[in-house]
Amino acid sequence: MKKELLRELLETKQYKQLHALLMKESEVDIAYLLQQLELEECAIAFRLLSKKQAARVFSNMDIQRQKQLVELFSETELIALVENQYMDDLVDLVEDLPANLVTRILNHASASQRQTINQLLSYPSESAGALMTTEFLSLEKEMTILEALNFIKEKGNHSKTVYTSYVCDNKKLIGVVSTKDLLLNDEKTKIEEVMKENFTYVYTHTDQEEVAQVFRKYDLMVLPVVDDEKMLVGIVTGDDVMDVMVDETNEDISKMAALEPNDKSYFQMSVFEHAKHRIVWLLVLMFSATLTGSIITKYENAFQTVPLLVSFIPMLMDTGGNCGSQSSTLIIRGIALDEIRFKEIFKVMFKEFRIALLVGSILALANGIRIFLMYQDVNIAFVVALSLIVTVILSKLIGCILPLLANRVGLDPAIMASPLITTIVDTCSILVYFNVAMHIFNL
Amino acid sequence: MKKELLRELLETKQYKQLHALLMKESEVDIAYLLQQLELEECAIAFRLLSKKQAARVFSNMDIQRQKQLVELFSETELIALVENQYMDDLVDLVEDLPANLVTRILNHASASQRQTINQLLSYPSESAGALMTTEFLSLEKEMTILEALNFIKEKGNHSKTVYTSYVCDNKKLIGVVSTKDLLLNDEKTKIEEVMKENFTYVYTHTDQEEVAQVFRKYDLMVLPVVDDEKMLVGIVTGDDVMDVMVDETNEDISKMAALEPNDKSYFQMSVFEHAKHRIVWLLVLMFSATLTGSIITKYENAFQTVPLLVSFIPMLMDTGGNCGSQSSTLIIRGIALDEIRFKEIFKVMFKEFRIALLVGSILALANGIRIFLMYQDVNIAFVVALSLIVTVILSKLIGCILPLLANRVGLDPAIMASPLITTIVDTCSILVYFNVAMHIFNL
Repeated sequence: MKKELLRELLETKQYKQLHALLMKESEVDIAYLLQQLELEECAIAFRLLSKKQAARVFSNMDIQRQKQLVELFSETELIALVENQYMDDLVDLVEDLPANLVTRILNHASASQRQTINQLLSYPSESAGALMTTEFLSLEKEMTILEALNFIKEKGNHSKTVYTSYVCDNKKLIGVVSTKDLLLNDEKTKIEEVMKENFTYVYTHTDQEEVAQVFRKYDLMVLPVVDDEKMLVGIVTGDDVMDVMVDETNEDISKMAALEPNDKSYFQMSVFEHAKHRIVWLLVLMFSATLTGSIITKYENAFQTVPLLVSFIPMLMDTGGNCGSQSSTLIIRGIALDEIRFKEIFKVMFKEFRIALLVGSILALANGIRIFLMYQDVNIAFVVALSLIVTVILSKLIGCILPLLANRVGLDPAIMASPLITTIVDTCSILVYFNVAMHIFNL
Repeated sequence: MKKELLRELLETKQYKQLHALLMKESEVDIAYLLQQLELEECAIAFRLLSKKQAARVFSNMDIQRQKQLVELFSETELIALVENQYMDDLVDLVEDLPANLVTRILNHASASQRQTINQLLSYPSESAGALMTTEFLSLEKEMTILEALNFIKEKGNHSKTVYTSYVCDNKKLIGVVSTKDLLLNDEKTKIEEVMKENFTYVYTHTDQEEVAQVFRKYDLMVLPVVDDEKMLVGIVTGDDVMDVMVDETNEDISKMAALEPNDKSYFQMSVFEHAKHRIVWLLVLMFSATLTGSIITKYENAFQTVPLLVSFIPMLMDTGGNCGSQSSTLIIRGIALDEIRFKEIFKVMFKEFRIALLVGSILALANGIRIFLMYQDVNIAFVVALSLIVTVILSKLIGCILPLLANRVGLDPAIMASPLITTIVDTCSILVYFNVAMHIFNL
């Protein structure tokens, strides 16, 4: 539906027609459309939605519009909204809204809802507990499939998924039933006969990155979350996992570019916020780079005698940085995907050493020949070529060792990416370069 | 199950017990376990699986083991394997196996399977057509829910999902039915009353990155793929989309680190393959960096007179590179997530300009003071500080403009990342620096 049509129907008060049209749209698209309207128009259109639909549309809106709507809603509307929200969305709302609005919302939540909200808020951020929702279907193992299907029919509307149900014994999770098995088997079959007793699960404290890995490995649609006593407390669904995957990637890519990670999109952040997220690393790296500078001053004598030496500094520094960041990127990504582990550090180092030897030799040869042809100076060609090989080897080794070490000591390997590696490699390449030069030119 | 237990049961030929144990394990875990066994042991264990289970386990194995098993299988075994594979997995197999084995497999495929394989192979790689599978459930709009459920019971085992079915009119997709609606509504209701006529779909030629974006936006579990006449030809499921998300991220991160992307994991690639994937960009960037070097030689006079000037080159180059890669990373990621578009280029540039002014001033102030305190030289402090501000502004602008331009002309913005930006920014910073210095020192 076009925004213009929506506006026209609102202005001409053709609410019935609008209601009919809205019923056909997806909640994601409705949320996007309504957000572009003025608040009053948005509220009118919002009230045309069914309660269930309204709740879904609401949770797809951005926090600004959610805030405005909560402020505007009557008590009855708030009750309907709170009743129809999934617990994970409600918790997100409670986390993001200002305190006075949170109080209003909590006043309309039932005692059990309030308890669940508090429970969910208590889990560490980025854990399975913080990610999960609590609306799932519990079956009894003595039920027949027919009874189970009737139960799903009755309760399904309040569950985040109707395609997987759980069987508990004294609240302990003992089995998982897929609706596929309910549909494909005889309706007199007992649940205990079709339930899977060997199922994948995570704990409330499992890190969300691991949740995503488990999800991907087993091609899951939904994953049960248990507490330390293996009691079932919630479920994580595929849509949440996809969001986690994007968030985790954003976090890694940000860190790899010396940016402090955050949840907002580019345009949502103000100039000051952007500056704040960039300045710390820039300052750290800038002052680290002055070390390389002060090393250069020690070789003043060398480049006073052979001024041409200075002109190869950028090429050496850049090549070292690029080689280092190629290696560190591969290792960081490998660690994130659980393909490379610390115990394999020597295997990785040996591999990188051989790659560096190969790559370094090609670069050295190409550049050596170029320099010789341009300046007809064997010495300077040799100095640059040799420095290149050593620099490439050093930077590839540093690039693979640092992320693995960071991971080992519990730091995020992503901080050991291009910017930091470049700064460290720069110092090495300058040292190698001038030492080789001093030797060859007898300075 | 432990590998040791598996081996023991195999050696003592307790096949019944082993069969019972394997039935409980997930196909992903069985594939992982069997891959670690010797080929003969693996084949024995494999034959204990049910046909359906065997097909799933097989598609979770790596290509080496798949190849060995196909070579070993009898004709009957091959037929069972091919019959029970989903078309997308079968196509992957046909793409990866050597020609003689492909012929063997195709000999055992039915005529319609062969036709489907050829059809799927004809779609461009990384398109929805190449990603989809063809096993889905088609309902008639005149069916009642009861009839539909019976249909699913009968045919469900051959469909990749039983939770979404499709309604076609003359093969044209006209409606989507969720099993949730089948379960939650009265069984006498007609399908056309519960089917959604306003559904999300993609075309066979839609890029897989867009498929993933649509999936995430609408929190989908499965997405129908149609041809240009809107005839339904396949479906894409969540597990495939998660793989796409990881692949696309790998591709972007690789390009951003000046690596040629590829599908293999770190250890799967040989030293030569690694070198091949790294050397081209390194050569290009190395020779580009020599430009910066040749610019420096023009200012020989300057650094012969004020040798201290050389020592600030690494710091300036690194800071410029870091600033540029911060901006380019944010923009590349924003484009990938569809948050930033080319038409917003001036908005982005204005934002980056203000951020750069703020960040650059802080860096200049910090470094200016440091230099003045260390060398008691106002002139050099001023030269470095001013060059820093200009470099930061230039690099942030270059860092945001180039990815957007690349996207505009149909290139992957990810190539405009740190390494290339750094090389370009280096030239700018050196030019700015020496020009400012010549001016201040009257050289």
